[in-house]
Amino acid sequence: MSILIKNGQIVTAAETYVADIYIKEEQIVAIGKHLNYKAEKVIDATGKLVFPGGIDPHVHLDMPFMGTYSSDDYETGTRAALHGGTTMVIDFILQTQGDTLHNALKTWQQKSKDKAIGDYSYHMAVTDFNDKVAKEVVQIIEGEGITSFKTFMAYKGALMIDDGQMVQLMKVVEKHGGLVTVHATNGDMIDSLIAKNRVEGNLSPLYHYLSQPEVTEAEASGRFTDMLEYTNCPGYIVHMTCEGALNAVRRSTQRNQKVFVETCTQYLMLDASLYEKDFDGAKWVMSPPLREKKDQEALWSGINQGLIQTVGTDHCPFMWEQKLMGKDDFSKIPNGHPAIEHRLEFLYSEGVRKGKISLTKFVEISSTNSAKIFGMYPRKGTIAIGSDADIVIFDPKKEHIISAETHHMNCDYSGYEGWEVTGKTETVILRGKVAIENEECLLKAGNGKFIPRGKTSKTVI
Amino acid sequence: MSILIKNGQIVTAAETYVADIYIKEEQIVAIGKHLNYKAEKVIDATGKLVFPGGIDPHVHLDMPFMGTYSSDDYETGTRAALHGGTTMVIDFILQTQGDTLHNALKTWQQKSKDKAIGDYSYHMAVTDFNDKVAKEVVQIIEGEGITSFKTFMAYKGALMIDDGQMVQLMKVVEKHGGLVTVHATNGDMIDSLIAKNRVEGNLSPLYHYLSQPEVTEAEASGRFTDMLEYTNCPGYIVHMTCEGALNAVRRSTQRNQKVFVETCTQYLMLDASLYEKDFDGAKWVMSPPLREKKDQEALWSGINQGLIQTVGTDHCPFMWEQKLMGKDDFSKIPNGHPAIEHRLEFLYSEGVRKGKISLTKFVEISSTNSAKIFGMYPRKGTIAIGSDADIVIFDPKKEHIISAETHHMNCDYSGYEGWEVTGKTETVILRGKVAIENEECLLKAGNGKFIPRGKTSKTVI
Amino acid sequence: MSILIKNGQIVTAAETYVADIYIKEEQIVAIGKHLNYKAEKVIDATGKLVFPGGIDPHVHLDMPFMGTYSSDDYETGTRAALHGGTTMVIDFILQTQGDTLHNALKTWQQKSKDKAIGDYSYHMAVTDFNDKVAKEVVQIIEGEGITSFKTFMAYKGALMIDDGQMVQLMKVVEKHGGLVTVHATNGDMIDSLIAKNRVEGNLSPLYHYLSQPEVTEAEASGRFTDMLEYTNCPGYIVHMTCEGALNAVRRSTQRNQKVFVETCTQYLMLDASLYEKDFDGAKWVMSPPLREKKDQEALWSGINQGLIQTVGTDHCPFMWEQKLMGKDDFSKIPNGHPAIEHRLEFLYSEGVRKGKISLTKFVEISSTNSAKIFGMYPRKGTIAIGSDADIVIFDPKKEHIISAETHHMNCDYSGYEGWEVTGKTETVILRGKVAIENEECLLKAGNGKFIPRGKTSKTVI
Amino acid sequence: MSILIKNGQIVTAAETYVADIYIKEEQIVAIGKHLNYKAEKVIDATGKLVFPGGIDPHVHLDMPFMGTYSSDDYETGTRAALHGGTTMVIDFILQTQGDTLHNALKTWQQKSKDKAIGDYSYHMAVTDFNDKVAKEVVQIIEGEGITSFKTFMAYKGALMIDDGQMVQLMKVVEKHGGLVTVHATNGDMIDSLIAKNRVEGNLSPLYHYLSQPEVTEAEASGRFTDMLEYTNCPGYIVHMTCEGALNAVRRSTQRNQKVFVETCTQYLMLDASLYEKDFDGAKWVMSPPLREKKDQEALWSGINQGLIQTVGTDHCPFMWEQKLMGKDDFSKIPNGHPAIEHRLEFLYSEGVRKGKISLTKFVEISSTNSAKIFGMYPRKGTIAIGSDADIVIFDPKKEHIISAETHHMNCDYSGYEGWEVTGKTETVILRGKVAIENEECLLKAGNGKFIPRGKTSKTVI
Repeated sequence: MSILIKNGQIVTAAETYVADIYIKEEQIVAIGKHLNYKAEKVIDATGKLVFPGGIDPHVHLDMPFMGTYSSDDYETGTRAALHGGTTMVIDFILQTQGDTLHNALKTWQQKSKDKAIGDYSYHMAVTDFNDKVAKEVVQIIEGEGITSFKTFMAYKGALMIDDGQMVQLMKVVEKHGGLVTVHATNGDMIDSLIAKNRVEGNLSPLYHYLSQPEVTEAEASGRFTDMLEYTNCPGYIVHMTCEGALNAVRRSTQRNQKVFVETCTQYLMLDASLYEKDFDGAKWVMSPPLREKKDQEALWSGINQGLIQTVGTDHCPFMWEQKLMGKDDFSKIPNGHPAIEHRLEFLYSEGVRKGKISLTKFVEISSTNSAKIFGMYPRKGTIAIGSDADIVIFDPKKEHIISAETHHMNCDYSGYEGWEVTGKTETVILRGKVAIENEECLLKAGNGKFIPRGKTSKTVI
Repeated sequence: MSILIKNGQIVTAAETYVADIYIKEEQIVAIGKHLNYKAEKVIDATGKLVFPGGIDPHVHLDMPFMGTYSSDDYETGTRAALHGGTTMVIDFILQTQGDTLHNALKTWQQKSKDKAIGDYSYHMAVTDFNDKVAKEVVQIIEGEGITSFKTFMAYKGALMIDDGQMVQLMKVVEKHGGLVTVHATNGDMIDSLIAKNRVEGNLSPLYHYLSQPEVTEAEASGRFTDMLEYTNCPGYIVHMTCEGALNAVRRSTQRNQKVFVETCTQYLMLDASLYEKDFDGAKWVMSPPLREKKDQEALWSGINQGLIQTVGTDHCPFMWEQKLMGKDDFSKIPNGHPAIEHRLEFLYSEGVRKGKISLTKFVEISSTNSAKIFGMYPRKGTIAIGSDADIVIFDPKKEHIISAETHHMNCDYSGYEGWEVTGKTETVILRGKVAIENEECLLKAGNGKFIPRGKTSKTVI
Repeated sequence: MSILIKNGQIVTAAETYVADIYIKEEQIVAIGKHLNYKAEKVIDATGKLVFPGGIDPHVHLDMPFMGTYSSDDYETGTRAALHGGTTMVIDFILQTQGDTLHNALKTWQQKSKDKAIGDYSYHMAVTDFNDKVAKEVVQIIEGEGITSFKTFMAYKGALMIDDGQMVQLMKVVEKHGGLVTVHATNGDMIDSLIAKNRVEGNLSPLYHYLSQPEVTEAEASGRFTDMLEYTNCPGYIVHMTCEGALNAVRRSTQRNQKVFVETCTQYLMLDASLYEKDFDGAKWVMSPPLREKKDQEALWSGINQGLIQTVGTDHCPFMWEQKLMGKDDFSKIPNGHPAIEHRLEFLYSEGVRKGKISLTKFVEISSTNSAKIFGMYPRKGTIAIGSDADIVIFDPKKEHIISAETHHMNCDYSGYEGWEVTGKTETVILRGKVAIENEECLLKAGNGKFIPRGKTSKTVI
Repeated sequence: MSILIKNGQIVTAAETYVADIYIKEEQIVAIGKHLNYKAEKVIDATGKLVFPGGIDPHVHLDMPFMGTYSSDDYETGTRAALHGGTTMVIDFILQTQGDTLHNALKTWQQKSKDKAIGDYSYHMAVTDFNDKVAKEVVQIIEGEGITSFKTFMAYKGALMIDDGQMVQLMKVVEKHGGLVTVHATNGDMIDSLIAKNRVEGNLSPLYHYLSQPEVTEAEASGRFTDMLEYTNCPGYIVHMTCEGALNAVRRSTQRNQKVFVETCTQYLMLDASLYEKDFDGAKWVMSPPLREKKDQEALWSGINQGLIQTVGTDHCPFMWEQKLMGKDDFSKIPNGHPAIEHRLEFLYSEGVRKGKISLTKFVEISSTNSAKIFGMYPRKGTIAIGSDADIVIFDPKKEHIISAETHHMNCDYSGYEGWEVTGKTETVILRGKVAIENEECLLKAGNGKFIPRGKTSKTVI
């Protein structure tokens, strides 16, 4: 198939200009003024933005958690993502403590294989590290195209590895060209604060927030950068929420370190005052929790300072009934909220429209940097000759309102109900095929491909 | 005229891929696989890098200094620049204290108008600020396409303005969308150290270095960021040389500031041990002076951390006879060295080849960021549809040796004599015309255009 | 004469215990339980605190400023000081620019000689530094018992020296065992902000405050520590008011520096909201101005962290009529306020009583550290055998209210009118003579002695 | 009994002066010039220093460790301490994990009761924290006169508590007026580095050092200050060795924290080059290990900056035969070295004599601050009326050489064999009795008293 997109304002991480794009099969073949290719389909993009399909570096689909599963599977999740212009996601494989990485890989391959509509890759979460797992890590990097290893400094007994395991993992990963990513919060402190709050009868969602104070994230983020420096390993901190954690990364720059940082749309837009709404606050029970307005400002600054490279969602939706599991005890509320769909629209509306970031920065943080850091570049993450034709045609002026009634995620509430957004995904192309048009998804389950990834380095960006 | 560049490895600040480029008149018209345009000239770039013409944000051509003039004028200077792949330079207009900005502008227009071979713009150096000059600043921004205002915290009595003038200038510039750039060293300290050394008979070039210790730059850089924060003005620190100054910028990030930073190739490559070579050290007498190896490491890190956005040259050559003016007194050695020609080759050979920076970072710091920060984007600084066809075809494997005998700068010595470089500029295209081919410059004096610039902001990158 | 103080709770910078003190002639001769010396005068100090006479390291008596003189001379000033338990003050000699230090010294000797009731010394303010003055500095240290040299980074054209003069002064002072003290604010910035406010018709006392924002002090304090590090000179920052400046000193500790810091009672107690009271705000027009509540907290912390060693007053009173000189223009309001009298009572009532500092810290910051830093130790600043018998007997429970009607300073207003204080100076002994008893001063003008001072070092405390 | 010490140069934390001291029974009764008391014993201290008996805040006597016991018990240990002028020590009670604090207390009471010659107190090490232990903590503070609680961030499975237990302990301790002290190194990292070195056959003492890099201490020290800030608890870091850890404390000052810090003589004097001597390096196998010269400089600076308040020894001697347990495996070398005896002499010789600290600072860090921080003030830690007569008469000029042959510690090697020292303890008085005279100890086992301690606060100094 071939597509000609006429006259759009093309935006990449580096530039913006008006031109035509010609797509043949799965790739971008030419870009130019008044291209005279004949195409099976011609899209007039006059007045529209045309940018690379979004890459969400942080999603949890069909994830087992607290005895239940996140409510979007690979089919509903990647479909919703496509509706919002995100053509690829990176999900997390969770090793079961005591079991192998390869077994976990198989489980996740089964979850995704015939269901994914959009493209995907995996981070491998190492929840139990020892010499055997070390060997698996090498095999996974060299043989499976998975080069990022997620670690948890929290969730002891389930997901957490200790600092000794961490440095040994870092040494192996560094040697073989991978990347260690981290959920950087002090799990022991948090567990103890949760326990204390439960004993004292502090059971509402507000105490979820109060059990994970900023210090638990700031401390762990600094500790992680210390271990990275010691091992010389490339590292990436997921879902950073606060000024304290960002300052830990700033300090690391003084010893010539480069540490990658991800934040999520919710931390840029929402704040902890939402937890004061009684059980309604459960909608935003996630870890780390929402923070303060000063943290939002710090995060936007961090993006412009080049300290924060990517914005994900940590999409991990649960139905309201699932959230109700924690009605009488915040610690039983499944963590996470539905977010995969609106990341690009939120970043455009809250970021670009409000003058907080430039258009090129918008593409950089929503797509390009994830592709580069995670070794999928230049196949993914840009509009360039030879790249996969993952393209969003976006109406920058269209106003709409977020609602659970209209969103495509499999979740019966929205954390942004009634939020007014300017700018809307109009047409989405995935590897040369029209995925979204007229608010409909034209692709079927199984269309999504696993994208094997290459090695990474600290100078990739 | 039309040109078709076939099969090169195109590099921009965001991506690298193999494709053809079609140029018509002055602009890039199409990029694609196997483009079937007919062109008057076809260049086979197989195995070559194809990247945007370099922009040197910091040169001094035909500059009056210490009773003499820098030895490259607009003709020889921009020609040498083109030989090295730099298609545009930004020179400094120096207001005479007591005189107007407009008079200075006229002087520099005469220097450049019929002489420049490559494109150029000006920074306006404000050396005497008052209410009248404030009005001129507005006129210069709005009417002359010059939006960056250079200030000196050193050279009292000649170029320096005091901190009170600085904040008032910043307020005006901020209000009207300009940018304040700075030579950030503590002039009073330096003047006093120079005077003391002269009194004590410490007269060799080594004392030039010892009269400008790191603290003089670290302090002034911090002071400048403080004033920027107070006035909310966008700022840019030129020719940063040292860790101390970079740390001042790092501190500023903690209060959510974004300050732009430039370094120069010499500070990335050379160190102060060169000053121990008796008068031969005069070759590298420049301000600030070369620093230590730890500073080189800090600067490369700063580039990768996104703290340093541009690399210029501070090209300001003097003939050896001119340098000899200071034979018996370092303070009479004209400051500066020839550098305009080899910036791209040095950055490639020392940076990309040695694994210190990525290819895309190479383009970002040598061209794209200067275009963005200084308001010439997307006309300049990238390879994109509609942009000026300023293009370098670069042989990444060609080995050569730097020498005054072969360089094109009007200077009878080189600070890099015998330096082995891998990677060489082969063909250079300026606004659609072949400028350099087979080591010859095909364009004539007067070909270079003044490029008017737009406003800037802290979120431009 | 001999005095026996019975049974008081003695407090020094290191300890507190109950004992008797026996004084003979000018000195302390014995301390012990139930001392059986026969004394001409016996004072029962049961239930009272007995601590060293206060030393105010920062006062301006009979000081020429803005065409007038501060309203307390050596007689009224030192008398008021004694009423509050301050037995010694250090005043500032101001060199006239263009004139010698020795001429200034003579002028101040005449001001003090037959008038001082309490003891005194001088800081020598160097307002014009050159090679001749350098020689005078050495003579002043070696011959006059004056070892601290005050500098101003503000008040250009009157008091300010530039950074070049500063580093040369530091080198001389360091070589000869002196100390450089500084009024650390960025004078050029302040002058320019004042001028701008005047042009714009912003003429009330509030604009005095707004013309000296925190950045002007934070920046200059950092710059001063940078110059100290470069010259290896001991330094002392006077009247520090804000967190930003304190953080500059904290940064300096990271390079193994020790910089002494003074704050004043007003900065610990009052804040800038007082400037919103129209012209009444003139009462607190001083430089630097009062700051914010967060700064008070930082200063108290700095005291406990050992970063701030002394608390002075910057006593510089002007009659209300003098303040009225600036009725229509804040820049014409003489700077300063009456404070010499209540420093100890304020520090006790606001500091010790409210749990902010310990009793020993109270003595340390109000007396001992000034004696040590300024080379008068152990003669002054403590209760020890052989030390001058400068002793305060203090009733820690007595409540009283501050008022211009009852204070002894020659000033017709108080900046603390109505302030409730717990703790009052009862009896004051100066070099073995009762100076204050029953709220009367028993000593006459001329009793006060000039105290020559020894050299200092960074490890003196 | 009564003693009159004539004419010595008395030194306290605040002052130094020449006077007589009269002692009756256990206390100091009078200080003065030419005191005319009649005493049973008169000591001529002309030309000698007379300062408070040293307090070593960190010793391990008769301590079970790695299947053996430290080789000094309360008798030999406190006797050796007295020989060096240390009249009181604070030892560590180690809770057995799973057992109560009270049982541990009983064990240590039996170790000390009839054996101690010098005075002593205990820190209570909490190695297992839960709700029951929380109640014991309160009882120990209120009922046993033990107010400092030691924690370990290392030695998992034996001594370590996790960060969750830490914050809960801090909350209890803060509420009841105690202090949390910490061995701040990252145990998990260290355990993992040790294990790795063992697997790789790196078994010499050098690998003890390499398994505990600076980052493990810097990180943990920062983490501890973070938890202190969160809980508002007073804290004290024991045996700090390095710049990185000190910088963590410096950072904490920026949020208005006050954290107490102890270093030890060995970290001020020795460096890690000693580990390169094959198994001889076992003499200095201790945790944390010796560091670099830059760390020594940082620690001396920290003392003068007021950031480090106390200097202990971490005395924990083992016979050479015990050290040989680790002949083939550094991880089996018992940690610690003999040090209790020479702390004062080292601090005087290396600190005061070499101009690194003042005489008053010497007393402050060797005695007074420990007394204040640990709630024994003013009974201990100073020379003042009513204080215990714990006094050292010290010959500041006597030169001697350290050797295992002459030291009094029960250890057959010295880590300082042949070290030349200037200044020697001559006579030591403990609670009014002569303990050391003519290099002999005149007191018997059982003379030493347990000193109950009061509560503490962050503003105690």
